[in-house]
Amino acid sequence: MSGTKIRVTVWNEFVHERELPEIAAVYPDGIHGAIREFLETNEDIEVKTATLDEPNQGLSRDLLENTDVLIWWSHAKQEEVTDENVRLVQSEVQKGMGLIALHSAHYSKIMRQILGTPMTLKWREHDTEKLWCIDPSHFLGWFGGGEVFRSGVTFRRGYGKIFYFQPGHEEQPIYRRPDIQKIITNAVRWAAPVYRVKEFPDNIHAEH
Amino acid sequence: MSGTKIRVTVWNEFVHERELPEIAAVYPDGIHGAIREFLETNEDIEVKTATLDEPNQGLSRDLLENTDVLIWWSHAKQEEVTDENVRLVQSEVQKGMGLIALHSAHYSKIMRQILGTPMTLKWREHDTEKLWCIDPSHFLGWFGGGEVFRSGVTFRRGYGKIFYFQPGHEEQPIYRRPDIQKIITNAVRWAAPVYRVKEFPDNIHAEH
Amino acid sequence: MSGTKIRVTVWNEFVHERELPEIAAVYPDGIHGAIREFLETNEDIEVKTATLDEPNQGLSRDLLENTDVLIWWSHAKQEEVTDENVRLVQSEVQKGMGLIALHSAHYSKIMRQILGTPMTLKWREHDTEKLWCIDPSHFLGWFGGGEVFRSGVTFRRGYGKIFYFQPGHEEQPIYRRPDIQKIITNAVRWAAPVYRVKEFPDNIHAEH
Amino acid sequence: MSGTKIRVTVWNEFVHERELPEIAAVYPDGIHGAIREFLETNEDIEVKTATLDEPNQGLSRDLLENTDVLIWWSHAKQEEVTDENVRLVQSEVQKGMGLIALHSAHYSKIMRQILGTPMTLKWREHDTEKLWCIDPSHFLGWFGGGEVFRSGVTFRRGYGKIFYFQPGHEEQPIYRRPDIQKIITNAVRWAAPVYRVKEFPDNIHAEH
Repeated sequence: MSGTKIRVTVWNEFVHERELPEIAAVYPDGIHGAIREFLETNEDIEVKTATLDEPNQGLSRDLLENTDVLIWWSHAKQEEVTDENVRLVQSEVQKGMGLIALHSAHYSKIMRQILGTPMTLKWREHDTEKLWCIDPSHFLGWFGGGEVFRSGVTFRRGYGKIFYFQPGHEEQPIYRRPDIQKIITNAVRWAAPVYRVKEFPDNIHAEH
Repeated sequence: MSGTKIRVTVWNEFVHERELPEIAAVYPDGIHGAIREFLETNEDIEVKTATLDEPNQGLSRDLLENTDVLIWWSHAKQEEVTDENVRLVQSEVQKGMGLIALHSAHYSKIMRQILGTPMTLKWREHDTEKLWCIDPSHFLGWFGGGEVFRSGVTFRRGYGKIFYFQPGHEEQPIYRRPDIQKIITNAVRWAAPVYRVKEFPDNIHAEH
Repeated sequence: MSGTKIRVTVWNEFVHERELPEIAAVYPDGIHGAIREFLETNEDIEVKTATLDEPNQGLSRDLLENTDVLIWWSHAKQEEVTDENVRLVQSEVQKGMGLIALHSAHYSKIMRQILGTPMTLKWREHDTEKLWCIDPSHFLGWFGGGEVFRSGVTFRRGYGKIFYFQPGHEEQPIYRRPDIQKIITNAVRWAAPVYRVKEFPDNIHAEH
Repeated sequence: MSGTKIRVTVWNEFVHERELPEIAAVYPDGIHGAIREFLETNEDIEVKTATLDEPNQGLSRDLLENTDVLIWWSHAKQEEVTDENVRLVQSEVQKGMGLIALHSAHYSKIMRQILGTPMTLKWREHDTEKLWCIDPSHFLGWFGGGEVFRSGVTFRRGYGKIFYFQPGHEEQPIYRRPDIQKIITNAVRWAAPVYRVKEFPDNIHAEH
């Protein structure tokens, strides 16, 4: 982190909220707007947003090098994120930038590339989920239909910390719930880099 | 292991089956008898049983030194197991004997001593449990009432491998289900010692 | 934690420093005195000390209930710690008190009881150790003679966090090194309880 | 696995052994030949080899779909492996094929892609390494110059098991040592798939 605040960028695909009136009713300023709103109430956090429809899909090296924690929501258009942007995000995570992947971003190109393997799932909608925090780094989801899911889970790749958090289906105002907001706020503070290197792998070229 | 067969001892408290007719109807030969019955169908496993009402609570150093895997079911009387027997079991586990603790044995004196901490839980009866095998060493239990539980979990202490498995409430013929029998049989083969030392810690006295 | 400071109690066997002039020269105020000295320079930490020769071996329920982190150095007399005191420490750790076990305390009665198994080792003196921090919760020791050792390692039992740290042989002024002091100070802040319960297991009696 | 034997393919870059007489003297049949030689002495293992100079770099979908465990040695030319071949190997690992990456293959394109992050290191040659097996899935390397390294380490990605093993510098006849041969043979048996799926992620398309 540079300075005293954690610099968060909330990246959102921002498709459903513009195309479907019932989703727009839930998130009139977009999911990114809703997340920014509650994060900004914290004195130690400052927030930018970015969306898929912006130039270069809202991403740039300069933006990410000045982002401590990237929050990522994507679903319908996640295959459209360019390979170049995927590598850009992966590179910054390996150098130390935190990443919080929300909901369907489990199957984003970015998560598949960063983890080296896809998290996959079957799903249905309109079921009840209960979240059990079984460890500070692991939330277990219980579903009414008989399933379980690792609904919150942490990873490390290179110097970067990654948190995947399942809740956030766009039809429900999940990100307006204080308990969910608390979890994401805590995750931001956890994922903020302690170390951030200029280059990763940071020794291989010097040595080879 | 000595010889070609895995030597299993099934230790059972054997209280409910003798005191309550409805439990006796489920397990006329005791829970230990039911477990012995399915384990003995495997050519690589030989089985003895022991119960709390036997001399010295069914336990002796000689028995345990000749046991590769001890299966333990206890509930109503588990506080009556003597401290000496607890230390005897702990000592053999540390030297390499496998231990499979079933159902309420999560809170047995033996498990509390071996783990160094109690596994605790709240419970109710007459609910549905679904078991999800999320990893070869971890079964997750889903309960109809909204809870989750680590229903199958492995530990190591010293040279010994330990498997705790939650299903097995005495009112239901759980141990007659082929899927449950398969899990316990697999656990026996996993917990059988690869190494077994004569003394544990096996170097401290020679060195001090 | 109650209040704003982390309440540390440094418990020391305090035998070598009184019996051997060469050790007294290294630690004139005892190892506990040396540890207190550097910990007290931190505004967020307050320190008490206790030694084996004090009434009830320096331990009491009142002291431990008001201790956030217990630091423990023992060696020659560790078998003399009473079983009652071992259980007292174990109980508070399970309820949330942090524990930092130093050097030969790997084989203290307290660590053996809390872990459920002894950490054992072979050793020789007058070798060089290099410490590699391979993870925030794991320090690896490299020894000139060809050995490796997990010289810093964390555990959890119940609600309590435990840190074992190998360096600290009494003949060398290990605890006067700034790097070692930094590690122990960090460990105090890590081990300070986030949750501390009144009774552990905290639900079993109400339910049974 | 299909049939009774584990089908191993040893892939070798095969550059040093052909270009440098001193390496050719150590491995006249190539590193892949030396590995095949000792693996073939096991009745439960059958071995093919493949090298970079063969058509399509020695790789094909048909070959890999009929390989239970792929052993991979690469160094000087590992950047030349095509992206298409990298994805082919990654895909089969995710579906269940085992992978054993040797020596400099820690930094192969394949390992970087499969792990989602590079393992990096600094090195020098002509030092002594001692291997400590600290866990069945973890070998720790001690080096005379004061370093440690996780010289044997396991990973899982999708359904596939991966073993990285550091020893194997081409100037030394490492793969002729019986202890090293035993470790690699054990790794082959461990990495052989228990499950192998036709498609991975094996449910996402059906559902999406």
